[in-house]
Amino acid sequence: MNIQDDMEWITCDSPVNIAVIKYWGKRDEKLILPLNSSVSITLNHEELRARTTVAISRNFNEDKMWLNGKEQSMKNARLQSVISQIKRLSRKRKTDCDQLDEKLQWKLHICSENNFPTAAGLASSAAGYACLVYALSKLYGINGDISKIARLGSGSACRSLYGGFVIWNKGESSDGEDSKAEQIAPETHWPELRILILVVSDQTKHTGSTVGMQTTVATSELLQQRLQTVPQKVDKIKQAILNKDFHSFAEITMKDSNQLHAVCLDTYPPVSYLNDTSHHIMQLVHAINEDNTSNMVAYSFDAGPNAFLFMQEKDVPTIINILRYFYPSSDPHFLRGLPVPEKDDYHVDYTTFIELKVVPRALKFVIYTKPGPEPSVKETDCGLLASDGLPKLHQ
Amino acid sequence: MNIQDDMEWITCDSPVNIAVIKYWGKRDEKLILPLNSSVSITLNHEELRARTTVAISRNFNEDKMWLNGKEQSMKNARLQSVISQIKRLSRKRKTDCDQLDEKLQWKLHICSENNFPTAAGLASSAAGYACLVYALSKLYGINGDISKIARLGSGSACRSLYGGFVIWNKGESSDGEDSKAEQIAPETHWPELRILILVVSDQTKHTGSTVGMQTTVATSELLQQRLQTVPQKVDKIKQAILNKDFHSFAEITMKDSNQLHAVCLDTYPPVSYLNDTSHHIMQLVHAINEDNTSNMVAYSFDAGPNAFLFMQEKDVPTIINILRYFYPSSDPHFLRGLPVPEKDDYHVDYTTFIELKVVPRALKFVIYTKPGPEPSVKETDCGLLASDGLPKLHQ
Repeated sequence: MNIQDDMEWITCDSPVNIAVIKYWGKRDEKLILPLNSSVSITLNHEELRARTTVAISRNFNEDKMWLNGKEQSMKNARLQSVISQIKRLSRKRKTDCDQLDEKLQWKLHICSENNFPTAAGLASSAAGYACLVYALSKLYGINGDISKIARLGSGSACRSLYGGFVIWNKGESSDGEDSKAEQIAPETHWPELRILILVVSDQTKHTGSTVGMQTTVATSELLQQRLQTVPQKVDKIKQAILNKDFHSFAEITMKDSNQLHAVCLDTYPPVSYLNDTSHHIMQLVHAINEDNTSNMVAYSFDAGPNAFLFMQEKDVPTIINILRYFYPSSDPHFLRGLPVPEKDDYHVDYTTFIELKVVPRALKFVIYTKPGPEPSVKETDCGLLASDGLPKLHQ
Repeated sequence: MNIQDDMEWITCDSPVNIAVIKYWGKRDEKLILPLNSSVSITLNHEELRARTTVAISRNFNEDKMWLNGKEQSMKNARLQSVISQIKRLSRKRKTDCDQLDEKLQWKLHICSENNFPTAAGLASSAAGYACLVYALSKLYGINGDISKIARLGSGSACRSLYGGFVIWNKGESSDGEDSKAEQIAPETHWPELRILILVVSDQTKHTGSTVGMQTTVATSELLQQRLQTVPQKVDKIKQAILNKDFHSFAEITMKDSNQLHAVCLDTYPPVSYLNDTSHHIMQLVHAINEDNTSNMVAYSFDAGPNAFLFMQEKDVPTIINILRYFYPSSDPHFLRGLPVPEKDDYHVDYTTFIELKVVPRALKFVIYTKPGPEPSVKETDCGLLASDGLPKLHQ
């Protein structure tokens, strides 16, 4: 934390996480308590992260917030809930030696941005809320489990507070005290795992996940069956992760993604996130896997058409060449993120063993990344607020 | 039946049927016994039908079959099963006065064609098998229930043997004796009901329904839940049909279509029949209905991307204008089938209340039809075989 005159501030980064056992449906809308436990992989900060600077000062006149360069209203129930819970926890843990009581009265400035384009349609609220809660906990000097507070901002945000492989236990208690995230294994446990994010070109506006899951809970006949089968799948994927058993990991991941989108379709009116490109990617993945003795790649889709592909590092060059073949692009920045080792098989005619159409420009771009660590505090010069407490961008 | 020299022949027409409670999954692959009962609407022959001429002669050297102008192998297990069951029934019911024993030895020529283009991707096996079984029953003089035999050719064919509103009771017995179709109400019961078939332009090849449902039964976790809820939905839609309650009929129809495609997506590997145009049509239908106090239109999708829209006659001009608006086409034969009463609201800007993109050429064409009667025997001059027992087309 930095202290200058009467302003205190801190800057933190927080990762994106991708669920492999999906969270869909709440048992408590206000406390954001889920109907099922979920499992996710936290991604490397370098490629995808939210960054947030939080500052308090006796000179600020009102709470203010900027998100990706634009000022936002503070009148968001979830945002208010997160801030008041952090302050409550801070009050509970205060020591006599600080002037916390006074500082808790100081107005707050929040400035947050993502290092990936909004137009990519990648959900950012989880990383954003995790980052805000993490930064506020550092600013107000809170230790201990804050994933319950992040959950109040955006359910899946609680998973972004841990690195590597994470479970969000749904919990049983009605006050949500046991509905929190914990780490299954750190990112170093499975160093070979890699992720490709396929950002599809057609980002048609779709139902938000909050409304989508509410409608599913209210109308889907099949959701109950899904909820009964999730605990078994959670156990199985934890084992697959602990054993680094890619074949099983891939199968469970794909089945769970498909089941999420199945209950969305069973919703009335139906909720649909997958488009023709998403389905093409799914068929391509199954075709690649059928051509192998065991699964080489797995897909997962959230509340949008973009695909998250999981694979082992050794297979990345092959997968990338297949993607370049089926989704040709002239964009020199088509492939972003980690450097990719080249593999000289560009001239393979994949259509001889994969019966699928080539679809030029189906993908906007691809981000190559890997599992990564928990949120972290950044150096002062990474800060998004200037010494006057206003966004640097605007100066 | 026509008798000339040593050849006997007959020509019949059989309708297409559209399920509103879908058949998906068999409990017996060989006897084609379904896991759930299904409900369908038989369509008018004029717009969509199969026509079959069957002929026997002491002069034929072998069994032969032509389908839409092309000779087919007779070595199809289902085809053989249907023919042998028909002959078995004929033997059982023979009287002393005919020379049936001899005629049952005569070789058989079958010639069948549909009055709708194959490229339209409309399933024709139900109408085709219903037509074959109906024609053979007339040729061999069989009365009584033949829907069990049609079922052996293609499950849903049994429903095409009745007009109007039809239920295929799944039955309980292991020999399939009680798995047969029966009429809920004739087509004259609900004379206001109309159907628009939206043939979508992108007819990408997809998984056949036989393999699709096998894979669903083998892998879908959600199918069991669907099977538990079907009986209630069957009762409800029967009531809606008997009460001519379009609002309920529409809701149950859409929910069941969505649930079918949900269990397809929950299959591993997933089975997908809906494409972006199908989803656009679904969104359009829900937008139209939301703008009304009660449902004005319902969709249903089979194992392909084409939409079957149900509505009442009074709403047809409005629906057609909306379709012309969102799926503009320059094809003068865009709208086929029954004549459509014009409605002068071509200049309405539907995008002001329906937030959807206009998608030119998304539809190949639209067929306007209505519920229709059971199969029928045709006049001699409709026959597809010439007096030498070979297809007229080929002469």
